[in-house]
Amino acid sequence: MRKNKAYLNCLSRRQAQELWRQSLEESGYFAAPPAEAVAVDAALGRVTAASVYAKNSVPHYNGAAMDGIAVRAADTFGAQETAPRRLTLLSAARPFEPGGCYMVDTGDAMPAGTNAVIMIEDIHIDGAAAEITAAATPWQHVRIIGEDIVAQEMIVPEYHVITPVDIAALLAAGLETIEVVRKPRIAVIPTGDELVATSAELKPGAILDVNSHMLAAAVAAWGGEPVRLPIVRDNGQAIKQTVFASLQTCDMVVINAGTSAGREDYTADVLAELGEVLVHGVAIKPGKPVVLALCQGKPVIGLPGYPVSAMLTAELFVRDALLARQKLPVPEPAPVEAALVKQVASAIGVEEYIRVSLGSIRGKTVAAPQARGAGLISSLTKAQGLIVVDEASTGLAAGAVLPVTPLGRIRAADTILAVGSHDMALDILGVHLRRRSGNLSLACANVGSMGGMMAIRNNEAHIAGIHLLDAATGQYNVSQVEKFLPGGDWLLVHMAMRQQGLIVPAGNPRGITTLADLARPDLVFVNRQRGSGTRMLLDYRLGQAGIDPDAITGYEKEVGTHMAVAASVAAGAADAGLGVQAAALALGLDFIPVAQEQYDLILNFAADDARGQYIIEILRSGEFRREVEALGGYDLEGAGRIIAGGSGKTADRQ
Amino acid sequence: MRKNKAYLNCLSRRQAQELWRQSLEESGYFAAPPAEAVAVDAALGRVTAASVYAKNSVPHYNGAAMDGIAVRAADTFGAQETAPRRLTLLSAARPFEPGGCYMVDTGDAMPAGTNAVIMIEDIHIDGAAAEITAAATPWQHVRIIGEDIVAQEMIVPEYHVITPVDIAALLAAGLETIEVVRKPRIAVIPTGDELVATSAELKPGAILDVNSHMLAAAVAAWGGEPVRLPIVRDNGQAIKQTVFASLQTCDMVVINAGTSAGREDYTADVLAELGEVLVHGVAIKPGKPVVLALCQGKPVIGLPGYPVSAMLTAELFVRDALLARQKLPVPEPAPVEAALVKQVASAIGVEEYIRVSLGSIRGKTVAAPQARGAGLISSLTKAQGLIVVDEASTGLAAGAVLPVTPLGRIRAADTILAVGSHDMALDILGVHLRRRSGNLSLACANVGSMGGMMAIRNNEAHIAGIHLLDAATGQYNVSQVEKFLPGGDWLLVHMAMRQQGLIVPAGNPRGITTLADLARPDLVFVNRQRGSGTRMLLDYRLGQAGIDPDAITGYEKEVGTHMAVAASVAAGAADAGLGVQAAALALGLDFIPVAQEQYDLILNFAADDARGQYIIEILRSGEFRREVEALGGYDLEGAGRIIAGGSGKTADRQ
Repeated sequence: MRKNKAYLNCLSRRQAQELWRQSLEESGYFAAPPAEAVAVDAALGRVTAASVYAKNSVPHYNGAAMDGIAVRAADTFGAQETAPRRLTLLSAARPFEPGGCYMVDTGDAMPAGTNAVIMIEDIHIDGAAAEITAAATPWQHVRIIGEDIVAQEMIVPEYHVITPVDIAALLAAGLETIEVVRKPRIAVIPTGDELVATSAELKPGAILDVNSHMLAAAVAAWGGEPVRLPIVRDNGQAIKQTVFASLQTCDMVVINAGTSAGREDYTADVLAELGEVLVHGVAIKPGKPVVLALCQGKPVIGLPGYPVSAMLTAELFVRDALLARQKLPVPEPAPVEAALVKQVASAIGVEEYIRVSLGSIRGKTVAAPQARGAGLISSLTKAQGLIVVDEASTGLAAGAVLPVTPLGRIRAADTILAVGSHDMALDILGVHLRRRSGNLSLACANVGSMGGMMAIRNNEAHIAGIHLLDAATGQYNVSQVEKFLPGGDWLLVHMAMRQQGLIVPAGNPRGITTLADLARPDLVFVNRQRGSGTRMLLDYRLGQAGIDPDAITGYEKEVGTHMAVAASVAAGAADAGLGVQAAALALGLDFIPVAQEQYDLILNFAADDARGQYIIEILRSGEFRREVEALGGYDLEGAGRIIAGGSGKTADRQ
Repeated sequence: MRKNKAYLNCLSRRQAQELWRQSLEESGYFAAPPAEAVAVDAALGRVTAASVYAKNSVPHYNGAAMDGIAVRAADTFGAQETAPRRLTLLSAARPFEPGGCYMVDTGDAMPAGTNAVIMIEDIHIDGAAAEITAAATPWQHVRIIGEDIVAQEMIVPEYHVITPVDIAALLAAGLETIEVVRKPRIAVIPTGDELVATSAELKPGAILDVNSHMLAAAVAAWGGEPVRLPIVRDNGQAIKQTVFASLQTCDMVVINAGTSAGREDYTADVLAELGEVLVHGVAIKPGKPVVLALCQGKPVIGLPGYPVSAMLTAELFVRDALLARQKLPVPEPAPVEAALVKQVASAIGVEEYIRVSLGSIRGKTVAAPQARGAGLISSLTKAQGLIVVDEASTGLAAGAVLPVTPLGRIRAADTILAVGSHDMALDILGVHLRRRSGNLSLACANVGSMGGMMAIRNNEAHIAGIHLLDAATGQYNVSQVEKFLPGGDWLLVHMAMRQQGLIVPAGNPRGITTLADLARPDLVFVNRQRGSGTRMLLDYRLGQAGIDPDAITGYEKEVGTHMAVAASVAAGAADAGLGVQAAALALGLDFIPVAQEQYDLILNFAADDARGQYIIEILRSGEFRREVEALGGYDLEGAGRIIAGGSGKTADRQ
């Protein structure tokens, strides 16, 4: 089986979904799904396999609907204010006799012979008789059999998801068990020579199998019963045997991955041997290497290996088949209109899926694209929405307003978009924001101080963290903000003084002492991206010291956060990088101080937006101060002080 | 404890909710909830008890991001098209030496000594050397440690609901277990002398305990762990002991019911002895008798006994406390604007909750109120939305546009509102509609033929079932429709000929043979409501036969459906009623034919609305015909034939 292969076809997403659905439909896969009986009170969330009809009527007897007396209506005809009538009070044990009545409470069964209730307020008890002054109509104040539910009436239709109130109705109607759709069993088979099952087995070049857990959880969330199998190595025969065995016990098989058209990719060949491959290759990004097959009348789906690709293609092809098998509609969350905060390039001929953060800024909903690598699990967890760039488009312009499919439950109005310089204290700010508000969460995009100011200017961010030294004045931030955001409707609020310096391996084995060491030919540096305050600090100090950046090996290697710098050093990928002390401490690295700098936040909220006030309150709180200072290298004296801006709109200037 | 009591207070819903929330807040009930450790891959849907930080970086090694050769960038400086450079290909086992390189595939660990990858497309292999024509920058095409997730970075914040992608991120970051909020345990205690636990124990006057199952399921749906206890009789001491015992093991106790202020209502007294009663009585309808108490620092809630009241008050008071205990936000589904199809009266001083069906008719969303009895479980299962009439209002006018809170998942656009005469075949139509469309469901309001025509005229219904005899012409339906809906944009479509007659007990013990028997003084009749076609048929036939309605006992007792008539007869509440043969057959009753009548549907859909076509297709299908005719007394010859209307808009007129 070792050979170089090609994709069978490369359909558009729409074509692939249509072909997939139609093929499964024609194979009978979506006909009546297998059912099983469950107790009604264990049926919450299950899907009915058939319409359920009442066995009993509810109520099941004629009962008094009021406290009072039960009478035979005919005995009361003619009673009036001017001509009251007396009825004999009978004890419950005595049979009815004409002209008699019984005391009844609400809910009591109507005694035999009676057919109406007269309210307690409308009678006068006089010894052994009840005096009435108005006739009763037959069945007045009687709750009659079947008033709520009549026997044989449909209680819930087929393929209905059982809710708590359905359980009440079904039990009341005399049902004890009902037929529900058996949860489809979905085999999830991780494949790959590079995969290991536990962190303990990880070595360079090995990858922890997290996809099978993610896919199994997704299957459970979509109503299936996942059967996660052990890792299978890249061996056609082993994969074939595992798929074959799974087909005997499961309703669907998901293989991850081996779905490309390379030498070691066996999935498509194996499925062609076991059944029919309908699709191999879909013109989407990420996620092109998808295999859709029908084997023994069951869907078998090969998903690509990168986590973002695997999840996206699972949503497009596994979820749809799984829901349709259970006769459940595919949820179509109403799209949110949002303005894109930055340009997105896209290739012609592929439909591109881009995950975004959403926020509502001064009444405008904006979408900030996440990093796009198919391997970035963090882009999955951080995303709040999905945009689709169609095949004919070369990309989307910054500012374009487009529909965003919301993911999960966080609303745009509940997200604070922090765009700008990265600082570890922002994570802590996010925790406090959520804790204090109950609903708000922070989404961070690390684009550096300058990028943050631009985002504020375009109303694309609520917060921008900045640390920009004005070389002319020696002052931080305020002059830059006033220059780039003149007359703006923002506040500049102090957050922290923080220690920047060289992050070096523990014990400083290369004996680095100053910035000048960075030019040593035996050292590799890791840099921060252009536009970041840390990069500007580096360039400023290199200039002061007369050091040529070209002399620094690794000056071109840019990463986006302090922690990424520290991680590069910790892993031996670099000998030094410039970053905050807290990052060095977090990973147990050494730190050579270079400068203390001022890190402030620009806040961009309308004057009546309580969210801005929340943030200032948190910055000023002792709890926040303690937690941030515990990271190391921070001084939060004066945090929350308003430095500039606001044109007097915010009352509590300190 | 036997005494007559009063409500402690009767707060508005808003006051009660505020007092409740604030009291629980002050008691510390919403402080850090108890946590437990769970395996990450068993954590789907659980709520994190603390923010979770990465243990490992992802990726955990520097890896090739492309297939090609791994090189030391310094060795490549100076390489150009005109001055290619040759690097020695080293086998993986050999240590790095300057000027050497290794073949690498995507994902391979970077060999020690190398720091860049040159793509396979950009090299020329020449024996044991690779020739390159451009310099590599350090770290090009290398996926460096922490590019996705950096150790110590926050993966998920506290009080976050774990999703499938979170599971992937947590496992990738080296977490195997995480701390989650322990599911709150909620005791659900059914109380009442009238309650029985199983249908087998039901006798007249007894009520099946369905509420405790409904409330337990609701608790589970809101993230709690229900502990449903056996029925406790109306005995203060027994209730007190059960509540006390539950407080030792549970986080919250729900008692249902005994919450009014009557002689046999012990809940408020018991809770006053065990702790502090904060609220007894809330100015809402249904649901006034609510008891909210704090006992041993835990919330104890007494809910009223009627199912609709119990569910509403559980949503208002149990759900909010349960979600807040888990630090979860209360879901606030976006309200839908809808026009009320009929007037709703409401009392001043109470906030009234009314359940409605929703439908989208010719672009307008309409809300049809359900029957309002607090005991009507069917109003819970059939409702799609909830409207609230505030305390200051005396009611809402027909046509008023107001916000409706959607319940559950059915969208207004997916509901077909059938308003008009009741027929059992409509249930079958609903099943087929759903089966054929995948998403559409039918909501029926039984208001009779005339009511149905009025609803069509006001664009408040999609379908109206009618059977109206024009005495002058002997013709059914068409003349009436043309009279009441002149020039309208509707279709009149034939559904069935059906047999109407007298439904009498099995064996016809009273020897009823004709309508004239109804005037016998020994017989009790059950009638249909005014405006229904069946009532009009009765009155027409009584007039023909010269029978005075006043002579018929029970003529005033009106019920809303054929099945309700049959249920009254089956239960002995009436000796006869007029209805369709199918209803008699469904409950095993005898039937005396009176007339065959024509039952048709008015369809009110825009010309481009596919839903109208669906219905016609179903009516014409053999499957529908067979299923309806199997009910008995139906003839579906010609079902789906268009009789009138439509102004030629529908092409496939038969």
